[in-house]
Amino acid sequence: MRILVTNDDGAHAPGLWALVRAVRPLGDIVVSAPDRDRSGVGPALSLNELIRAKELVSPMPDVKVFAVEGTPGDAAVLGLRHLVPGKIDLAISGINPGTNVGEDVIISGTVGAAAHAYLNGVPTLAVSTSEGLRDIDHPVVGRVITAISPDLAALREPSPLYLNVNFPPLGKAGPTTALRTRVAARFLEDKVEAIERGYRTYYWLLRRGGRSVDSAHEGTDVWAVQNGYISISPVYTEFAGGDVNERVDAIVKKANAALRGA
Amino acid sequence: MRILVTNDDGAHAPGLWALVRAVRPLGDIVVSAPDRDRSGVGPALSLNELIRAKELVSPMPDVKVFAVEGTPGDAAVLGLRHLVPGKIDLAISGINPGTNVGEDVIISGTVGAAAHAYLNGVPTLAVSTSEGLRDIDHPVVGRVITAISPDLAALREPSPLYLNVNFPPLGKAGPTTALRTRVAARFLEDKVEAIERGYRTYYWLLRRGGRSVDSAHEGTDVWAVQNGYISISPVYTEFAGGDVNERVDAIVKKANAALRGA
Amino acid sequence: MRILVTNDDGAHAPGLWALVRAVRPLGDIVVSAPDRDRSGVGPALSLNELIRAKELVSPMPDVKVFAVEGTPGDAAVLGLRHLVPGKIDLAISGINPGTNVGEDVIISGTVGAAAHAYLNGVPTLAVSTSEGLRDIDHPVVGRVITAISPDLAALREPSPLYLNVNFPPLGKAGPTTALRTRVAARFLEDKVEAIERGYRTYYWLLRRGGRSVDSAHEGTDVWAVQNGYISISPVYTEFAGGDVNERVDAIVKKANAALRGA
Amino acid sequence: MRILVTNDDGAHAPGLWALVRAVRPLGDIVVSAPDRDRSGVGPALSLNELIRAKELVSPMPDVKVFAVEGTPGDAAVLGLRHLVPGKIDLAISGINPGTNVGEDVIISGTVGAAAHAYLNGVPTLAVSTSEGLRDIDHPVVGRVITAISPDLAALREPSPLYLNVNFPPLGKAGPTTALRTRVAARFLEDKVEAIERGYRTYYWLLRRGGRSVDSAHEGTDVWAVQNGYISISPVYTEFAGGDVNERVDAIVKKANAALRGA
Repeated sequence: MRILVTNDDGAHAPGLWALVRAVRPLGDIVVSAPDRDRSGVGPALSLNELIRAKELVSPMPDVKVFAVEGTPGDAAVLGLRHLVPGKIDLAISGINPGTNVGEDVIISGTVGAAAHAYLNGVPTLAVSTSEGLRDIDHPVVGRVITAISPDLAALREPSPLYLNVNFPPLGKAGPTTALRTRVAARFLEDKVEAIERGYRTYYWLLRRGGRSVDSAHEGTDVWAVQNGYISISPVYTEFAGGDVNERVDAIVKKANAALRGA
Repeated sequence: MRILVTNDDGAHAPGLWALVRAVRPLGDIVVSAPDRDRSGVGPALSLNELIRAKELVSPMPDVKVFAVEGTPGDAAVLGLRHLVPGKIDLAISGINPGTNVGEDVIISGTVGAAAHAYLNGVPTLAVSTSEGLRDIDHPVVGRVITAISPDLAALREPSPLYLNVNFPPLGKAGPTTALRTRVAARFLEDKVEAIERGYRTYYWLLRRGGRSVDSAHEGTDVWAVQNGYISISPVYTEFAGGDVNERVDAIVKKANAALRGA
Repeated sequence: MRILVTNDDGAHAPGLWALVRAVRPLGDIVVSAPDRDRSGVGPALSLNELIRAKELVSPMPDVKVFAVEGTPGDAAVLGLRHLVPGKIDLAISGINPGTNVGEDVIISGTVGAAAHAYLNGVPTLAVSTSEGLRDIDHPVVGRVITAISPDLAALREPSPLYLNVNFPPLGKAGPTTALRTRVAARFLEDKVEAIERGYRTYYWLLRRGGRSVDSAHEGTDVWAVQNGYISISPVYTEFAGGDVNERVDAIVKKANAALRGA
Repeated sequence: MRILVTNDDGAHAPGLWALVRAVRPLGDIVVSAPDRDRSGVGPALSLNELIRAKELVSPMPDVKVFAVEGTPGDAAVLGLRHLVPGKIDLAISGINPGTNVGEDVIISGTVGAAAHAYLNGVPTLAVSTSEGLRDIDHPVVGRVITAISPDLAALREPSPLYLNVNFPPLGKAGPTTALRTRVAARFLEDKVEAIERGYRTYYWLLRRGGRSVDSAHEGTDVWAVQNGYISISPVYTEFAGGDVNERVDAIVKKANAALRGA
């Protein structure tokens, strides 16, 4: 199995390398990621710009690493369509040190990067943890991803799945249950900070969560993570042909089997 | 009613000014749009950058125009949260001279711009036409938008709607029917062009439509536009609380009444 | 005479339009300027990027205006080599509302923009005033520029001149003397402000003048402006073939004749 | 002696690491360089933007490396004023694999980067070789730089020197003579390539050397390199207080002594 690993925090990010270590036993791994932290740009592509990429010296000799001077989406498309020879079976984006649930999904580069692999027909996972960098190497993360990846990669027709996986805070033992969830609607109260310098004014956007519409509802991704479950949501459901829920349920079952040591 | 008009083609774009002319009878109009063409960046926000904005000399004395040095999403948030005093009742993004259906929705700046108004709790429309600039001033466009805007603006609780409206090619008479549709799944065959100059390599991403999964299916936005219907789709349905379809149906009914001169 | 007008504050800047009004009697004027404020980038060119440009609706029907999505230098080269048909006789950059003397010259976009016209063989002026926007329309500015432009434009061989003109604060009557000066050496004490947000650190460069090496010396541009003289300095003297001082003196003589009403 | 090493090709560039290896015997080395290739931007600073920087894993344990998301000038100022504690005695920029002589000096990021160290009062060298990457590790390069650095660092008052050093093609033995030169005036014939894609036009600037005004003259940097000499030119001579030539001559003498094994 050939896996494209990407993210939005950049090719140097510790979360990306934790992910590479976790999925390495599954097959050939190639990294194509932005050369800088490009959080917040969602699925943006640089269609009107020239993009450059460089191959970095890899910390793992059998894992090629490309740093792309563009968005997370640029890195995914460039990896998939040009930098990596041959067919990609699965794209995984992450590990983002911080959840991507509810309102964050739309501007998440972690989610947006791999969306382009998905739109190009490749099964895809986005992976985020709750506790910053603390949990990125937790064995439960690797166990769940390696358990569901082969089935996900096999499910390419009629259209692949795109799953957004979020881990709750992982204690010593880790959680024992994964749930299929839906992305919660939460509404925002974004703020704008105006900064005056000389005769110039600058603005800084501050993302602020606002009133919750349904994030407290059982079954949402926000609720699941807050209650100690691993959340597995289909995203970009606008594009999903066929019965998504049924297919996601089969994947979630695999995750639960792995968590219970079956 | 106070309406925020935005787009992704920039504050100078003819489609934006066609939209302003169409909705001006509805109330106070304020424009906050990127200062440049920023197509392809979807809902990207510049959370790690300082943003600047300037007020332009407006071609219409009662319409204020802000040109924002950022993404379409930055322009929407800045307009909504800082540049425009008071409450915004409705955000409209467009008119994009070219449809935003199926796979284009995810990276569409037209769709992505107004998504941020929606995520901040404001009812939202994205508007695109089929035939480049030819149809942007067609009376059918104005008739549909002005017919549905008041009801859409009134529908703020429990959560607003976000509708993506695409017009088919508009002949002399124009179409007579609007349909509620869903965004079609189409898979892409993006290409990468490599350009060698001296000892440097540059890449250019080329967006290419690929095999169609379900765009030929009745009920999708692609099918509707190809068959001469006005397509009205809810987008970012991941975030929609409650029964979206029922609420969209009521809006579509209004559009059809306007088209039939009722 | 065909004159290319450019600047670094952008095609919308009031200083640029004051300059256009001042030089319009001299011949055909074409504007090619950045579409945004791009102060501080000196003579930077975007050699590794694609550049876009749009023609704006001009406030003066006989003056074409191109807004270039690039650096001041990009705007100058694009104007000179592509957007404007025919031969350019003179390039003028400004009016910058704030002096460009001593240490500012190297990063000044006003100075850097027109440097590229000069390097492409076109005689060039950069124009700055002392008192922000207050003096940009002062008649002394127009009188000096229109007096020296024809001679400067005629002086193309063996190599053109590039002059940096700075006006002192212009009172009611205005100054009566222009001096040939040299760019003062002043050393800087740049500061860096570190801003912490969440787990990210951002830096903001703050330009700070430091100990003066020779700016108090008679004959420097800093000294001239501080003592009420119009300063005319050759810049990029590394590139100047032949006896620059002698040629500049002839130009300064013209300026003084105009100031004294001769 | 504490040396700041910078460049415009980015912190990963082989030329930079060749330079680090060459000057390491002289004292403490710290690298602050752009995280990407930023050629062509000369001395541009990002005064209106927030800058980020990350410390990279260094290939040499005793050499700290900062990759700055900005221009070469940003990297130099950030290194000098914030990232590196304590006083910097010397800044060296390079090794650029390609000469920076004549007309290239103004837009050279190699030259522009270190210019900001110089303007902040630090003695500075810019170093370029003729034959791409072939000569960056040639022993003559290291011999010349290490010979002149201590004297250059000692010469801080009344103002430091800024020297632009260019090596001719280095054969097996290498050249035996360094000359004090002046930057040649050469005039350019820049070209603009227009690229049409769909309804958009993109421009690409192509730097083209044109008629030579004086580059064939003995004593210029272009002539020196073409005739097999090591060229040492003072740059930004506008800012140089006192008798520059005399001070440069003393440095050139040191270089020649080192070349002759004295």
